[in-house]
Amino acid sequence: MTKSNPGNFFEDFAQGQRIAHATPRTVTEGDVALNIALTGSRYALFSADSFAQDCGLAAAPIDPLLVFHTVFGKSVPDISLNAVANLGYAEGKFLAPVYAGDTLHAVSEVLGIKANSNGKTGVVTVRTEGFNQDGAPVLSYVRWVMVNKRSEAAQTTDAPPKTPASLVTSSELLLPPGLDFTNYDFDLAGSPHAFEDYAVGEKIDHVDGMTVEEAEHQLATRLYQNTARVHFDALAQKQSRFGKRLIYGGVTISLARAIAFNGLANAAYMLAINGGRHVSPLFAGDTLYAWSEVLAKEDLGSAGALRLRLVAARKPCAAFPSKNDAGEYDPDVVLDFDYWATIPKR
Amino acid sequence: MTKSNPGNFFEDFAQGQRIAHATPRTVTEGDVALNIALTGSRYALFSADSFAQDCGLAAAPIDPLLVFHTVFGKSVPDISLNAVANLGYAEGKFLAPVYAGDTLHAVSEVLGIKANSNGKTGVVTVRTEGFNQDGAPVLSYVRWVMVNKRSEAAQTTDAPPKTPASLVTSSELLLPPGLDFTNYDFDLAGSPHAFEDYAVGEKIDHVDGMTVEEAEHQLATRLYQNTARVHFDALAQKQSRFGKRLIYGGVTISLARAIAFNGLANAAYMLAINGGRHVSPLFAGDTLYAWSEVLAKEDLGSAGALRLRLVAARKPCAAFPSKNDAGEYDPDVVLDFDYWATIPKR
Amino acid sequence: MTKSNPGNFFEDFAQGQRIAHATPRTVTEGDVALNIALTGSRYALFSADSFAQDCGLAAAPIDPLLVFHTVFGKSVPDISLNAVANLGYAEGKFLAPVYAGDTLHAVSEVLGIKANSNGKTGVVTVRTEGFNQDGAPVLSYVRWVMVNKRSEAAQTTDAPPKTPASLVTSSELLLPPGLDFTNYDFDLAGSPHAFEDYAVGEKIDHVDGMTVEEAEHQLATRLYQNTARVHFDALAQKQSRFGKRLIYGGVTISLARAIAFNGLANAAYMLAINGGRHVSPLFAGDTLYAWSEVLAKEDLGSAGALRLRLVAARKPCAAFPSKNDAGEYDPDVVLDFDYWATIPKR
Repeated sequence: MTKSNPGNFFEDFAQGQRIAHATPRTVTEGDVALNIALTGSRYALFSADSFAQDCGLAAAPIDPLLVFHTVFGKSVPDISLNAVANLGYAEGKFLAPVYAGDTLHAVSEVLGIKANSNGKTGVVTVRTEGFNQDGAPVLSYVRWVMVNKRSEAAQTTDAPPKTPASLVTSSELLLPPGLDFTNYDFDLAGSPHAFEDYAVGEKIDHVDGMTVEEAEHQLATRLYQNTARVHFDALAQKQSRFGKRLIYGGVTISLARAIAFNGLANAAYMLAINGGRHVSPLFAGDTLYAWSEVLAKEDLGSAGALRLRLVAARKPCAAFPSKNDAGEYDPDVVLDFDYWATIPKR
Repeated sequence: MTKSNPGNFFEDFAQGQRIAHATPRTVTEGDVALNIALTGSRYALFSADSFAQDCGLAAAPIDPLLVFHTVFGKSVPDISLNAVANLGYAEGKFLAPVYAGDTLHAVSEVLGIKANSNGKTGVVTVRTEGFNQDGAPVLSYVRWVMVNKRSEAAQTTDAPPKTPASLVTSSELLLPPGLDFTNYDFDLAGSPHAFEDYAVGEKIDHVDGMTVEEAEHQLATRLYQNTARVHFDALAQKQSRFGKRLIYGGVTISLARAIAFNGLANAAYMLAINGGRHVSPLFAGDTLYAWSEVLAKEDLGSAGALRLRLVAARKPCAAFPSKNDAGEYDPDVVLDFDYWATIPKR
Repeated sequence: MTKSNPGNFFEDFAQGQRIAHATPRTVTEGDVALNIALTGSRYALFSADSFAQDCGLAAAPIDPLLVFHTVFGKSVPDISLNAVANLGYAEGKFLAPVYAGDTLHAVSEVLGIKANSNGKTGVVTVRTEGFNQDGAPVLSYVRWVMVNKRSEAAQTTDAPPKTPASLVTSSELLLPPGLDFTNYDFDLAGSPHAFEDYAVGEKIDHVDGMTVEEAEHQLATRLYQNTARVHFDALAQKQSRFGKRLIYGGVTISLARAIAFNGLANAAYMLAINGGRHVSPLFAGDTLYAWSEVLAKEDLGSAGALRLRLVAARKPCAAFPSKNDAGEYDPDVVLDFDYWATIPKR
């Protein structure tokens, strides 16, 4: 038996199966610094302990997206090493803040399997949960992946999952315990715009562009201990459809969110991920821009929440590139992401 | 009103105006490691807690240049987002050491404004100060920037600043409290040369060369949370005079200082910045070399101070490239920097 | 006298000479994060404090290879600045675990010198030791280097060293104090394979490939504060035999070990380095793959030890590229490395 991990194929998955993922990871100030260096993120809440303490937290929490990428990365060797495509994710909920020094591990449960008619692949739906060193859940999300079969002859019985919710409802949103925006310093945060200033339907061009280098996305993706080969092996990728390395979609999300600071500086803390689509691949050398649309607003009492659509593209976004009437995306759009973030009220 | 920050234009500045900058930043061991990885700095004082403790400090202080870049970065969105050129800086004083765990924020005061006769731009002079979480000032410097007007029609009244001092005098130099070189270990520091060994007028070729990659300067500049677009947006830069991304001048300074270790290993702690000129731009792919000249020496009692001129160029510096008799720089010179550093006496 | 360090030439070395190296270095969580980002290492023992604590340690130890590169880097300015070639190393022993916050320094002793008949170079053999802030040795290894003479006229007397041992014997292997694999979690570690599952002679293809960028190897080598010019100065390297920068061999070792996770996930902790050969240079743009062979097994009581041969090549390693019958290496092989690692017993 080979000692190297061949990954799971479609016929290896069964509904109800639980998979404990390697590798546990202590997230530290080193990761925080790298996350800033790799994305240019300027959200004050994640950047300064004193700012976070003035918001009622023990210290600057780890950017929820860094938590997401870390947990996601752990699931890759077991879930998507033999994936053809990541089809979607949903029901992403940040359940507790993570602080430097916490150790994360991840477990996935198979929610359902469904073979494709071509006999070569099938769709596996899993719920992946991240836990801290105390066993407390910090993140939960559902994703579905098209996975190759090891053998076309393998017989499988479909066990379809419950359809994931299209939206995390506002009643499911959890503010970090202790979060208190009473003394929020809008000057230090970099923007005067509070919950009340955003209108549903409002679109924001985030203006700035960021060109991505091979070294940068490789550093980020390795930081997340995500080992999917398509991101790292230029030699093998020469034979692929694209002929080159693909940038991990999580890198695109984090870059777009960092760019979105310019317009959403106070909407730092992500509460939930409703869904996301990686419309087309991003490659090294591309320059990423982003725009946002306010999809909904919810008053959570001590803070507001914005439901935001984040679109990232390979060209400036003053014209808000999106879909045409036929539902086809502008060819320069790479990401269409739907999430909730909390924001101070005035 | 657009939510993204358009930055201030010339007519938005007024003498006496104070601007509190975003984003506060906790500087950590993660930043220290990245600073070493990005520059190759080998100064023992910033590299080893035990060495710094043997010099009377609580721990290894943060390299003053990293403090400078962090504070400078904060001022960019408010001061120089619409700048045409950074014209100069002066009166840079490191007022207190910064340690891992400290949180920095920055405030600028407009010292003066002066419109240019072309009606399109003006010069804004500011004093920027960095503070730690206790509100203690850690850095103060003056810089003047040529800034675009939003509208040529805008009427402004000149309010010229006091001319900045051409030199921080030795009486203004502040040693870090507790600094004591009595037991200084020259072997561990990497050089036997003490204050007494340097002569005014002496030139030192620092020998080593460092080629800079796009990913490296982008990582460094994002680490400083400096978002000036010219460093990151290759697509927009294609339309610029240079056709490509410019390396942030602070990256050049830090690289040159790291290279200067080889000849100035004991002159680790920068006390003051007298001024600096970014003679020509540095681009990815260029290889940076550096040489120094001892401009002055001051005995501060418990330690010495050297006033040093640091010149960086795109070619080896054995011939000490500088200015010709007409005052024109060698075309390969990129930086001419004037600062004070402390150094142990024998 | 020039202030910049010209390095030692062959005639500067004498048997018995002890050289204390600059720069002491506090290894931190920042270095750990960078090591993960630069290599993609996923060994649970180095990644998670809680996992290491469940293995009886105080916290996640620093990856011994990071300790090796850090100590090695310190020796470069004194030992190999004027080296023509690194000929070999042996007797590498990790003597105590290093934890985040420890400060390392290094000392070398010259074991012997032997002039070459060409009159231009000679071989210097040194033992380099790394120590922590308490003066406790953490690493010891022997290396021999071909070093240029400053002057062909210089007279030297050969003082040959004792021949280094070809193997660190199992009785010399030191487990980290407290290490206890009783409750080892194979799921979290990412592999079910224990000591008992590996057979002498067994070969493992580690499957994954990693393309290396200039920025990446430069960041890593600077993190180690290794300043050998061949890794950084593209302009000078244009005149060299290869015409470009060489990747530091330590980067290759760390990448190959990170790749080797896929097949050796439980053999995380390196105990000793028997020897290694950098068969041919690695350049930016190359894609690295690796395979391993189990050379020997030793039961150390509370844990097992595997003696492993790690071969890295510029092409996939399913065919285990190595030497032909004439002893000539496959031209794509870059590294042939021989070490001991500990691994849990079932």
